[in-house]
Amino acid sequence: MSSASKPIGVAVLGMGNVGTEVVRILTESTGDLQARVGAPLELRGVAVRDINTARPSIPAELLTDDPAALVARDDVDIVIELIGGIEPPRTHIRTALQSGKSVVTANKALLADYTGELAAAAAEARVDLYFEAAVAGAIPVIRPLMQSLAGDTVQRVAGIVNGTTNFILSAMAETGADYAETLAEAGRLGYAEADPTADVEGYDAAAKAAILASIAFHSRVTAADVYREGISSITPADLASAAQLDCTIKLLSICERVVDADGAQRISARVYPALIPLSHPLATVNGVFNAVVVEAENAGRLMFYGQGAGGVPTASAVMGDVVMAARNRVYSGRGPLESTYASLPIAPIGSVPTRYYVAMEVADRPGVLAQVAGEFASRDIGIAVVRQEGAQDRARLVVVTHRAPDGALSETVAALEKMDAVTKISSVLRLEGTDD
Amino acid sequence: MSSASKPIGVAVLGMGNVGTEVVRILTESTGDLQARVGAPLELRGVAVRDINTARPSIPAELLTDDPAALVARDDVDIVIELIGGIEPPRTHIRTALQSGKSVVTANKALLADYTGELAAAAAEARVDLYFEAAVAGAIPVIRPLMQSLAGDTVQRVAGIVNGTTNFILSAMAETGADYAETLAEAGRLGYAEADPTADVEGYDAAAKAAILASIAFHSRVTAADVYREGISSITPADLASAAQLDCTIKLLSICERVVDADGAQRISARVYPALIPLSHPLATVNGVFNAVVVEAENAGRLMFYGQGAGGVPTASAVMGDVVMAARNRVYSGRGPLESTYASLPIAPIGSVPTRYYVAMEVADRPGVLAQVAGEFASRDIGIAVVRQEGAQDRARLVVVTHRAPDGALSETVAALEKMDAVTKISSVLRLEGTDD
Repeated sequence: MSSASKPIGVAVLGMGNVGTEVVRILTESTGDLQARVGAPLELRGVAVRDINTARPSIPAELLTDDPAALVARDDVDIVIELIGGIEPPRTHIRTALQSGKSVVTANKALLADYTGELAAAAAEARVDLYFEAAVAGAIPVIRPLMQSLAGDTVQRVAGIVNGTTNFILSAMAETGADYAETLAEAGRLGYAEADPTADVEGYDAAAKAAILASIAFHSRVTAADVYREGISSITPADLASAAQLDCTIKLLSICERVVDADGAQRISARVYPALIPLSHPLATVNGVFNAVVVEAENAGRLMFYGQGAGGVPTASAVMGDVVMAARNRVYSGRGPLESTYASLPIAPIGSVPTRYYVAMEVADRPGVLAQVAGEFASRDIGIAVVRQEGAQDRARLVVVTHRAPDGALSETVAALEKMDAVTKISSVLRLEGTDD
Repeated sequence: MSSASKPIGVAVLGMGNVGTEVVRILTESTGDLQARVGAPLELRGVAVRDINTARPSIPAELLTDDPAALVARDDVDIVIELIGGIEPPRTHIRTALQSGKSVVTANKALLADYTGELAAAAAEARVDLYFEAAVAGAIPVIRPLMQSLAGDTVQRVAGIVNGTTNFILSAMAETGADYAETLAEAGRLGYAEADPTADVEGYDAAAKAAILASIAFHSRVTAADVYREGISSITPADLASAAQLDCTIKLLSICERVVDADGAQRISARVYPALIPLSHPLATVNGVFNAVVVEAENAGRLMFYGQGAGGVPTASAVMGDVVMAARNRVYSGRGPLESTYASLPIAPIGSVPTRYYVAMEVADRPGVLAQVAGEFASRDIGIAVVRQEGAQDRARLVVVTHRAPDGALSETVAALEKMDAVTKISSVLRLEGTDD
């Protein structure tokens, strides 16, 4: 590479929180970026919804409301997609890749379902498709999984990858307030969107789990393959019970290599709120912070921690990808793409070994505990903890099981629900992060 | 890439803890490695000191005691250097790079002083020089700094990157035992070498700081540029004082961008045992675990945590590099090399703002505290905490300062040492990880 390398043209699609910061960095850090890339990065245009919105930081001639035309320009080498959603991003990215441009995107919803199609287009055109910012914001997770652990065998990826739900659960644990109240507070503080469904029902975390599982296990995992439960039914009583068990509750995205009795490997990808011991590294990840724990055969347990959302941190991840994609164009190289050679099948949730925490209201009379315990025993499920607190003629009974197939556990809960002595199943959560 | 890509030949130099595990992975994981590289990885030979030592896991014909001949073979594409020390590794690596072979090494001592020379040879030959395993074992640190943060501005890297000293300090904090006793115990458990100087005097941590600072700040930093103090003078009294201040003591490798009053940027790279608040993320990193905290302008604070040493975890990092180097050969690409375009000068330790913890024995009589405080005040150094515990006619006085130039702080300590009322300066340590 000589210092006379020709400029790399960059197009930004979308000027939300992240896009605004990406444009700022592209404009402010030209010297550093050029030195790191080996050629100048030149911003060719920014596609926005409405070019008439005042944007004093961008020269008006760079703004366009025609993203397709911007993507098609001959002097654009790298397209940064920050619009979000499936269409039109899917079309813009595919077009860009097919015409030999590299693409950087933070679009987890798109990637969760269409990485295969997009990676194939990138491979065909021999260009890069980078998406570090799609999972856990500024925290390097995709690159460590794809590159640093390329010579290892990943067993498990478990993370807190949604800031909204982590803010809500952290605040509920701290204040004792209920879910609705805390969600409203999160909305007031800007940590929850007007329609919080994608966050609180775990869709966002499931999309990220699909991306992480695909990469970690070199297989195709889409959002539909991810078992998903949200946090909207978590109560202050659950958090209080968790605390009594020296645990807290976190919404976890878990991607695990599970091995059948006959040695066949499958992938379990699942998102749900779970109890984790306070001593677990993820237990202290509070507020809008994210963290991902990776367990690999040789590396052992690694943890990556940082800011998982927000325009500025996410822009850092986007710009890391942009510099690497640009550098690859200068040096005619390419980063690794998604690979699905292992093609591991998905394990249905029922077959995955988990541990249950079941809280129920029961009649406070002799024989009830024996009857409840019998339902677990009949399905060969060991009980680790039982706590019963009497209250007049009713009692609150909490049972924590040992590990057993999730299907046997949920069957047991269904059987308990039908028992006369059980007035109400107040709560069913899983317990993660323990060795037994 | 077609599935018929020709094999990539690999040579391993050195069969210590790490080399043995690298050879095992190369031999056991051929299918996965081939799928990830896009071509088979073939082990051409392993250079050992004595080919007659029994090594049942390696076919005898692969062993050689002539590393130079192995490096020179035409069918070797990647050389994995795991001998350690400056020579002969320096010569072998240079020769390999000059003849167009990619190199993966875990040799921090060599890299701390010769990365420039070796990176130049790699750039000239358009091949890779990877060294993720040189810092913090299995924990991805080099790749995140070089690639993930390529579009950001790193302000600070602070880490616990030496397992031996972290084991000793963690054990001293836990048991109250003294340094000599704990070092002996570390030796018995295999966590300290027969000659522990490189670890306990901070040379190993300083080499890693030089590597981290070079990459983080795109500048040339060698081991000699790193200010260094070891842990051998840490006493149980220091750890007890630290605990009273809600702190613990860790050996830190700190690489910081410091800005002069006139706005000029310099690099401070330093290794010393320091008090850090118990609430700091590095405070809970115990035993042989390592962790690195990176603070960047846009990404904010990131933390990387995992196993920093040991043959198996370190081999994971080596193999990640091997797969990426091999993949680059299949796809004619190249990873980024060290870059020193920023060429920031080194800040002398005296100019770097730090905070001091000073423990001293003083005469227990009126006026002594005023006299001691006067020495700090005369150099414009604010005092944050004073603790005095009387004991007959003598008292133990602990002073924690606010941030001030290290030179002014050490001058103050020298002045205190000369005071009649100060019987003895028991301990001088720095305090890190606070915002003020």
